[in-house]
This record gives sequence, C-alpha cells and structure tokens, in this order.
Amino acid sequence: MKTSVAILGATGYTGSELIRLLEEHPHFEVTHLGAHSQAGKRAGEVLPGISGKTADMVLATSDATLADDIELVFTALPHGAAAESVKSALDAGKKVVDLSADFRHKSHDIYKAAYQAEHPCPDLFAEAVYGLTEFTRDKVKASRLVANPGCYPTSILLPLIPLLKSGLLDSKGIVIDAKSGPSGAGRSAKTGLLYCEINEGLSTYGLPRHRHVWEMEEWAKTLGQQQMTVRFVPHIIPMTRGMLSTLHLTGESPEKWHTILSESFADERFVNVLPQGTLPSTHGVKGSNRCDIGICVIGNHEAVIVSCIDNLLKGASGQAVQNANLMFGFDEGLGLSATALWP
Amino acid sequence: MKTSVAILGATGYTGSELIRLLEEHPHFEVTHLGAHSQAGKRAGEVLPGISGKTADMVLATSDATLADDIELVFTALPHGAAAESVKSALDAGKKVVDLSADFRHKSHDIYKAAYQAEHPCPDLFAEAVYGLTEFTRDKVKASRLVANPGCYPTSILLPLIPLLKSGLLDSKGIVIDAKSGPSGAGRSAKTGLLYCEINEGLSTYGLPRHRHVWEMEEWAKTLGQQQMTVRFVPHIIPMTRGMLSTLHLTGESPEKWHTILSESFADERFVNVLPQGTLPSTHGVKGSNRCDIGICVIGNHEAVIVSCIDNLLKGASGQAVQNANLMFGFDEGLGLSATALWP
Amino acid sequence: MKTSVAILGATGYTGSELIRLLEEHPHFEVTHLGAHSQAGKRAGEVLPGISGKTADMVLATSDATLADDIELVFTALPHGAAAESVKSALDAGKKVVDLSADFRHKSHDIYKAAYQAEHPCPDLFAEAVYGLTEFTRDKVKASRLVANPGCYPTSILLPLIPLLKSGLLDSKGIVIDAKSGPSGAGRSAKTGLLYCEINEGLSTYGLPRHRHVWEMEEWAKTLGQQQMTVRFVPHIIPMTRGMLSTLHLTGESPEKWHTILSESFADERFVNVLPQGTLPSTHGVKGSNRCDIGICVIGNHEAVIVSCIDNLLKGASGQAVQNANLMFGFDEGLGLSATALWP
Amino acid sequence: MKTSVAILGATGYTGSELIRLLEEHPHFEVTHLGAHSQAGKRAGEVLPGISGKTADMVLATSDATLADDIELVFTALPHGAAAESVKSALDAGKKVVDLSADFRHKSHDIYKAAYQAEHPCPDLFAEAVYGLTEFTRDKVKASRLVANPGCYPTSILLPLIPLLKSGLLDSKGIVIDAKSGPSGAGRSAKTGLLYCEINEGLSTYGLPRHRHVWEMEEWAKTLGQQQMTVRFVPHIIPMTRGMLSTLHLTGESPEKWHTILSESFADERFVNVLPQGTLPSTHGVKGSNRCDIGICVIGNHEAVIVSCIDNLLKGASGQAVQNANLMFGFDEGLGLSATALWP
Repeated sequence: MKTSVAILGATGYTGSELIRLLEEHPHFEVTHLGAHSQAGKRAGEVLPGISGKTADMVLATSDATLADDIELVFTALPHGAAAESVKSALDAGKKVVDLSADFRHKSHDIYKAAYQAEHPCPDLFAEAVYGLTEFTRDKVKASRLVANPGCYPTSILLPLIPLLKSGLLDSKGIVIDAKSGPSGAGRSAKTGLLYCEINEGLSTYGLPRHRHVWEMEEWAKTLGQQQMTVRFVPHIIPMTRGMLSTLHLTGESPEKWHTILSESFADERFVNVLPQGTLPSTHGVKGSNRCDIGICVIGNHEAVIVSCIDNLLKGASGQAVQNANLMFGFDEGLGLSATALWP
Repeated sequence: MKTSVAILGATGYTGSELIRLLEEHPHFEVTHLGAHSQAGKRAGEVLPGISGKTADMVLATSDATLADDIELVFTALPHGAAAESVKSALDAGKKVVDLSADFRHKSHDIYKAAYQAEHPCPDLFAEAVYGLTEFTRDKVKASRLVANPGCYPTSILLPLIPLLKSGLLDSKGIVIDAKSGPSGAGRSAKTGLLYCEINEGLSTYGLPRHRHVWEMEEWAKTLGQQQMTVRFVPHIIPMTRGMLSTLHLTGESPEKWHTILSESFADERFVNVLPQGTLPSTHGVKGSNRCDIGICVIGNHEAVIVSCIDNLLKGASGQAVQNANLMFGFDEGLGLSATALWP
Repeated sequence: MKTSVAILGATGYTGSELIRLLEEHPHFEVTHLGAHSQAGKRAGEVLPGISGKTADMVLATSDATLADDIELVFTALPHGAAAESVKSALDAGKKVVDLSADFRHKSHDIYKAAYQAEHPCPDLFAEAVYGLTEFTRDKVKASRLVANPGCYPTSILLPLIPLLKSGLLDSKGIVIDAKSGPSGAGRSAKTGLLYCEINEGLSTYGLPRHRHVWEMEEWAKTLGQQQMTVRFVPHIIPMTRGMLSTLHLTGESPEKWHTILSESFADERFVNVLPQGTLPSTHGVKGSNRCDIGICVIGNHEAVIVSCIDNLLKGASGQAVQNANLMFGFDEGLGLSATALWP
Repeated sequence: MKTSVAILGATGYTGSELIRLLEEHPHFEVTHLGAHSQAGKRAGEVLPGISGKTADMVLATSDATLADDIELVFTALPHGAAAESVKSALDAGKKVVDLSADFRHKSHDIYKAAYQAEHPCPDLFAEAVYGLTEFTRDKVKASRLVANPGCYPTSILLPLIPLLKSGLLDSKGIVIDAKSGPSGAGRSAKTGLLYCEINEGLSTYGLPRHRHVWEMEEWAKTLGQQQMTVRFVPHIIPMTRGMLSTLHLTGESPEKWHTILSESFADERFVNVLPQGTLPSTHGVKGSNRCDIGICVIGNHEAVIVSCIDNLLKGASGQAVQNANLMFGFDEGLGLSATALWP
C-alpha cells in the first residue's frame, strides 16, 4: 500500500509540480489537495498539466482536516501562512516537508529581519532540518520536519560549500549574479508578472538585500564553516523555468577548485560537475532534479562558477520529493529524473 | 501651437502606445493623462517606455475635469466605462476617438447581445463614425466622435470588404482562424495572463461567439454590401504584439482576387498587398501602422488570405492617431511609421 | 536483460527525445547512437539534456555497422535518407520504427507527388504498418517495420477518424488550421529557424499543399473509410514544443460528436477527450505523450474541434516508443508519461 | 537634396536597423544596399520589416562600385571583412561609420590579441575616432572615419567613465555581469542560434576573456583616465533585443555616485540616469536610442549599477546614425527616438 500524502497549496506552480512528480511515484500517493481560493473545483480545471485520477480530485479548503491515514504533508504555501499549517500537521502526527521559508532559519531575529514579520511558532525552529539534501542527508532521514531550501540558496550553496570548507575561497568578496525565470515568483495575479511585462525584457529585483541572502549566509556558516559575505543581485529572465547563478569568485589556487567540486559530488546523482572549463546552460536541467556546475578559471586568483537548476525541481518540488523519499526510507531518487526535457 | 490632447486610460497598453506615438507627433501634444487606479503617480513610474517630459506628468483621476484648451480626447478605457467619458468629453466640446467597443455598433440590440450590458447613451450611436480609415475616411474627417475598430475586425475587414463588394466571394462559408498576442487583452492582473500561463503554450478563447463577430458582420454588411456569416476562432499566441488572421475562403475566380485587392489599396500607404502567392508574417508589421495582406490560391474555388497587423497599432492606437489626424485636417500618416521594428 | 536499441539520427530533436525516453525505460537500452555530422563526439557534448552513461557514449557515423545484439532501430533521419537505413536494418534482421515519412504511403505515386523524389525501395511499402497506435495497434504488434505518423496527421486523424466513420461529417469541406512550434522543423542551421526570425512573430508556411495533406487524406480513407478533402494551413508559432490543430467542421448532428469521440477513446490512456465545450491548450500536453481533444458546437451544423499534442512526443518520439513497446510485447505506455511538464 | 548613403552588409540585423532608421531620416537617403550572399534580390524579399521604396531596391554585391554621389558609407560587416571596405570607401572620398570592431583599437597588438588576426590596414587606426558619442562628440564631428563602439562597451563605459574620472571607484575590482539578446550575434545560420537552442534557456559565453574586454579596458584608460581591470561575464538571454549590464562596484563614497552620473549626463538626451535607488529594465529602451542607468548603493563601499540599452540601437545602428548626424553637421538626434516600443 502506498503512503498517503497531502499537498497544501496545490494550485500554485510548486504545488502542481509536486502533483506531477507524485503521480508517477511508486510509493507515495496524493490523497488530499488543499487550495485556498479554488476550493471546491476539480483539480484538472485549475491545473492544465495533470491527468488521470488526480485531475478528478476535488480541491479542499486550506484549513480542511487531514485524514488520519495521511502520513506526509507538503506545504507549498506563502511564508507566514505555511507555519500554522506545518504546526497543525505535526501536531496531528504527520511528517512535513515545508517548501516555504518559514523553517529555514535558526534564529527568530534573522527570520524577522529577512521577512519583516513575527513568526507564529519559532519553538519549532530547533527541530527543523534544512533539507539541502547533499549536505544534510542524515539529518533529513531522521527528521519529521524538513525546511526545503530556497531556489537561489540551493543553486549557490551547492558549489560554494565545498569551496568554503577548503579554505581557499576569499569568503568576503563573493559576488553572485543570479538569473531566474518568473515561475519562482508564484502564480499570484500581479501586474508585474503579466506576460507582456516579463516577455522580451530583463530587470533586477529584490535589491539592496534579497531575503535569500540571510539564508545563504546562515547556511554557508553552518555547512561551509565560513562567515561569508555576498553581494547578491537577482534578475528575472523571460523564460518560464530555470535558474542560473553566476559566482564571481576570488581566492587561492582556483585551478584546484574543479577537483574539489568533482570529488565532493562524485557520488551524487543529482549534482553534476562539468569538465574543467565547460559552463552549463539551464537547458541541461529543465525538467530534471539535477544541478549542473561548471567552473572557468580566469586568472591566478579568480574563477567564475556557473550553477544551473530547474527552480521548480532541484530549487523546490524536486528537492522536496528527494527529502521526502529519505524521510520515509526510500531511495532518494524515486520519482525524480536526472535527464532534462530538451529542447 | 500644438493641439492639446487628453488620454483617458493612459496606463494600459493602448494608452501607453498613444503616448509613444504622440510624443513625436508634430501637431498634437499630450497635456492630460487620466488613470483610474494609478492617479497621483508620475507617468514614468508606471510606464517604462516613455521618456522626456511626458514621463514627468502626474496621472490624473479618471473623472478629473479636462482643461478648456484640450481639443481632443482619446478614450482607452474598458467598454462600458468608456461611454460615460465619451459623453462628458463631447458635452464639453471636445472631439473624441474612442478605442473601446462602445460606439462601434449602430443598434442597441446588437450591442447588448455582444456585450451583455445596457449602453448608457445609445443616442450617440447615430453620430459615431466607424473609423476603419481606408473605407470611412471622409466621414472620419467630418466627425466629432470616431469609434476606433476592434483589432480582429480591422485585420479581417480590410481584405474582406473589397472581395465582398466584388460579389465573387461565398459570403456564407467564411472561416476565419485568428491569432493574437496577449497585449490585446490589456494590462489587468489576471491569472490567465501571467507570463507562465501564456509562454510556451497555445489555446483558443472566446468561443462559441467572440464579441468581434457582431462587429465584423455588421460592417461587412454596411461597407461590403453583403450579409456575411463567419465561423471565427481566435487564438492567443506567446508573443507580446502582433495579430495574424487566416481567412479560409471559397468563391468564384479566386485567381482574380489578388488584382481586386491590389487595386483597392493601390493608393493606401498603410495597407500593403504582397505579390501573388506571398503570405505575410507579423514580423513585417510589428511597431508599424501597416496591414500586410497576402493571398494564396489553393484550387479553382478556394484561396487563403493572410492579414497581419500590430494589434496595438493598426489594431488600436495607430489607427486611432490616423483617425485623429483626419479629424483635425492633418496628413493622416503624421506620427505613424510604415516600417516595422525588426527583428 | 534489456533489449538493445540503436538510434540513427541521434543528435536531432526527435533523436534526443528518444534518448531521454529510453534512458528511463525498464526494458529498452540504447547501445548505439548514429549521427552523421557529429560522429566521434561524446553524445553529451552535443545534446544538453541527457545525463548519465548515455552522455558518455560516442556518436557513430550514420553508416556504421550495427552490432548483432541490437534488436530494434529507430530511424530519426530526413526522408529519403531514412529509407536506405531502414532497408539495411531490416536486412540485418532488426525491427524498425521509422520516424521519417518514407514508409507512410502505400503508393509510390503519392510518395513522389508529396516528396518530389523517387523512393529507393518502394517494395517495402507493402509490409510497413502505419503506426497511429490507437487505430492500428494489432498490426503494429505483428510488424517488423512501423512507419511512425507525421505530427500534423497524428493530431488531426485522431479526432477525425471516429467522426469520419460515423458518416456525420461533411468530409468535403474540412478546414484545418494548424499551429506548431519550430522544433518540428528539426535542428538544421537555417536562417529561417534562427531565434530572432521565429521569436515574436507568426507566419504560415508550406502552402498551397503541405506534404502532410497527402498523408492525412490517404489514412482518412483507409482508417476513416471516407474520401476526405481538406484545406490545410499550417503556421509556425514562437514556442519550442507543442502543436494545436483547429478543425473547422460542418456536418450533421454536431451535438452528438462529443459522445462519439468520448466513446472511441474511453479506453485510451494517451487520448483524452475533454468535457463538452472545453477546449484544450498545448500546456496540457507538453512533455507528455497525450493527445487532448476538445469540441465546441457552434451551430446546428458546425463545430470546432481542437486537438493538442507535444509534436516531439505523441507527434514523433513518444508515439515511436509506444509502437516499439507493442512490437516487443511490452505494455504500450512504458517509459511514457501522461502528465505534462507545466508550467 | 538629401545626402546619399550606402549600407554595406544590409541584410544582417544591424544593416536592417540602419535601413529602418534612415527611411524616416529627413536628410539621409539610402541609395545603395550591399549584401554579399543575397545580391540580386529585392531588399524586401530578405528583410521583412522595411517598406516603401527601399523594399524595392535591388541588393548589390559587396564589392560593387559605389556611385560618386554617395557621401556616407555604413559598414555593417564582420570584423576583418569590414576593414577592406572601409579603406575603399575612404579612398573614394566617402565618410565612413564602421559598425565592426576593425577600427576600435589604437594598437595593432591589442587588435591581434582580441581578434586573433592580422589587420589589413592598421595605418588607418590613427585617424579613426571612437564614436562613443557622449564622450567623443567633437572628434566625431571632425572625423571621416568613426569606429562605432561595441554594444557591451557602450552600455558599460557610459556609466563607468564618469566614475573612473572621479577617482572614487576601485578600478581593480570591477565585476561586470552582462546579459544580451541573441540579435547581437548576427544573422548567420548557426545551430547554436536556432530558436530551440536559445528559447527557454540561459547560458554564458565568451569566457575566459570576451573580445570586448580589450575594448573596454582601452577606452576606460583613454576616456576615464584609469587603468581598469574587469572580470566580465556575458550571458545570452531568450529575448530578441536588449542588453542589461550589471556592474558590481566597490569604492569610496558610493552615495555620491548618483550625483556624479546625473551631472555628467544632465544635458544628454540619450542617456537617462534614473532616480537614486531605481534600477532600469530593458523594456524602457527597446526600440529607442537611449541608455538607462540606475544605481543602488548596497553598503558603505559598494554599489550596483545597472545599464540598459537596445543592443541594435544605442549598441549599434542607433549610435551609428547619431555619429553620422554629427559628421554631417546635423542635429545628432535626427531619425532617432528616445521613447521605447513598449510593451
């Protein structure tokens, strides 16, 4: 019998992507779809891609009681709103993977600085495990609450952590210029996200300090053992999915960094370090749970690292399923593809 | 001294396009920008493309009194809302070009059927002139109220009218399959218009009977002297601007139709009939006020006609300026380009 | 042990898609990749999406001898070039799924009319099975040579055949207006396929008579038992994948057509008839092997049918794998998804 | 009477854009279009956007003799090829604006390092004027050979030069992360520029040292009076036109930089410094000759500057016309728009 799963926030882009991944999962089965404003509708009416019996499920209200047999809850809700649902689910004895930012921080002060709001249940911070799978695998396995990392931090921390640990990186002068498609901004009806406002144009946003900077700095310190300072500028790109982070780095012996990265991820099926000098494209990861990393040494003390993910997969729902697999003792790659949908 | 002009509904896509065209117009000068929800802001804050002194104008509320020296008002408002503003402007002695659908019909019954609403001032229907410039030029010149045609009717009636008048067309079996970018749907924050919902996808809408069918049939009869029946299916295409209408036609002597079209538009600078057998692309008209028409004869009784416009120009704001030029005795091409921005 | 498979023409878009599908297939294993101009390179160098051990395979020349243990060959080559490779593979005792047009016709005269060339081995026409799976399943199972249908014919014949068989359709006045992304045109370096020539534009092509008209008319007659005449106009759309065919139909009792379609495909997992009045978007099928069909009745004798597929999947490589599964006695859905990658 | 103008390389994207600009220019008239591979065709056959009589001109071979009355030649040819044409035109007494890289350098050694080729006429380097109009206006006026700047250097040097001159910038730690649409790569039929290879994807290119780095460093020194070292990473973005350069800067008193930029460009109609803290989008400059510059101070010693241009206008053909206007004593803005085509 399959493990019964609820998705709260099912009608957004990450919720829809969770449904897609779980439709073909051998051990999980979605039995509950929560959706605030669309409650009462057939799922297939609101989500064009899904098929089969999930399409015929009726969307529940966001505060509907979860059936007893549900063992796992994915919360794909806005930060702030997620925390309450997470607490309820935990109280009802379910395991939770939270895709919001609500449990990514260890300090309430940092949370408040980043999100400009009080947190409703900071007491849960202590047990939440940051689910950057490749670096926190064992803790994820033992956890009942996984805080799924942000998309930018995922693409950036994966290559940075091994280099920070090596001590070769100049951790104070890191410049990160990141680019993402607008699916990461969610499915809210905002003028700035209209087709004609995004298409054929390019801009920065989130300056001077994007919320994910706090998350990156905190986990660089914890997992990379370095106090990192980043200058981080995100851009929105006219493509639906995909994220490319360009890391402009200085430090010692950049010619050794490729080896450090290759060795760090040699056994990882979802992190792929390209040959020295080859830089990845988001085309290589769209539709897959892979992170592709490339490095190009520029001079004696400089290198550029490019890291690509699908922001809805390794940057959100894919990593969430990867973590869920671990929490239930399954092979961590179940339901996930390492091959991209290209072109 | 320049003629002073107001634009009501200045912050939508057609309003913005009017501003752009008038910024470089030798005889018109925009002195009033009305904008419901954005009133009080600098125009440049809301409209990224404009420059210079228009960008520094402050947006007025939609019901602000228009200064006495304003002689011309463009109403780029939703249907229903436009009618009241048109009436006020006429009462205050201004001329009006209305880009909404409110004065495109001659019968209140047809208006109600198409727009599912009562019209607030149907008494004005009698004096409104339908501004399909190439066919109603003289009436436009003498008018104080021009109803600017819809984008689909413009692209479709231009090639159809000469053929309907010729009597060679089978006017009962006309199939029109039309494609438009989403800028024609306006700048409202609707989920269905978000980037990720439009990009990389394709769909029909407006079935079984799009509002523009009433408009096309009415003006085919008046200007083409034929009772036309169309099967009309519009599609939304992932590109910001551009409209391509594919007319699947049957009738007599289709090999003569190219000559009929060429002769009809021989003296028109904004209607371009391509050589026999060559079909246009929207690339040829983006950013221009041109309509490009091509015809390909398929058999003894069949032909395909393709008609391309920029939906925001010949399909909206460009034709509106063309009409305004005529209403004020100017050369009708002032401020308008016949060359496309390509690529 | 898995069945060993060769893909000839592996570096084009359909070849790449075959690799992707087979990488996760439980019973097929790609052991040979043929690629004319790129022979000698690592597959991963040329194909950005693939991963794992396929990426490390070296591309063979197009005329390389196939190993004895290869049992199945997919030919994803241009028409004309495919025929010779198909013949060699059959002579060597392999089964073949040919994605080109070379074996889709039963008459050499029709082939010559459509493709303007002599066919090198018309003697093979007799045994080739047209692989429109839902209608030729039993023949496919027994075949050693499957001619995989064209993308337009697939999207169009699926809804047409049941209606043609019903006798209710006016089979002489069928107008089909089809739209496809440019991935169907292949990966050749042609100016007309450059990003800037396709992006933000829209045009028709292939008039007056696209090659697929012969294919559609032939199989409408064979499988639908009606001599059909179509007026067919294809358009190229600025999106990578996806095909939407709009069928403008007349006939008797169009209110019954939805039932006819629903019943015809009730047991098909890859053909999905939407509720009466709902028309599909290509968003619902991108990345899936599904064909979504919707119908909207317009009047007493008219209806519009919209049929959507992913041109690289149900329109090419997906249907090819579906057929291959049947040829080897596997479940026909192995390796194929019915859920779309959306957004 | 208008000044007669030749465009060599008329069928590429910059050539087409020159035609568009000059079609509506009051004093220049295009009388000669040179086009290597397309010679003999009507211009309108090859260039979809142009109209009127230019569309009817016949394309000449690239080595055709220029008529005596031609006074100005635009060379929109690949580097290497351009130099010979420039020399011939100068020898024939014409003035030249060269859009290639062939005359942007003062030293043959630097040219050879950047372009990996001998230059055929380095003796002309001395008299070529670098046409970054806002900084070299007087020299342009007096010149008969203007080297039109590269697109990246234009977008980057405009904001950098005033800051370098101020002495406040740390000129050794400049990180520039730039993004451009593929129209800058030209109209050659290359696989990497196909629609499906660019669309919905994102990648870097040109590393470790893009050719434009030499150009930027040389002119930073000459015009900014500082030996600058940049780490420069360009990216290709799925949009036809537009370039956004993100400058990650350190130095003293970044809070003063906005004033420095505002004062530097106070009288420039084509350089627009946005209010402090506001960063531009390429939407604001598409179709215009404007450069929009914004600055956001990040900390006590850091700021981000974003600079946007239309790569085909201020980054190529627009600046070329601006320079040509000056060379002939015309108002430098003739034929150029400061307003964008938006959306």
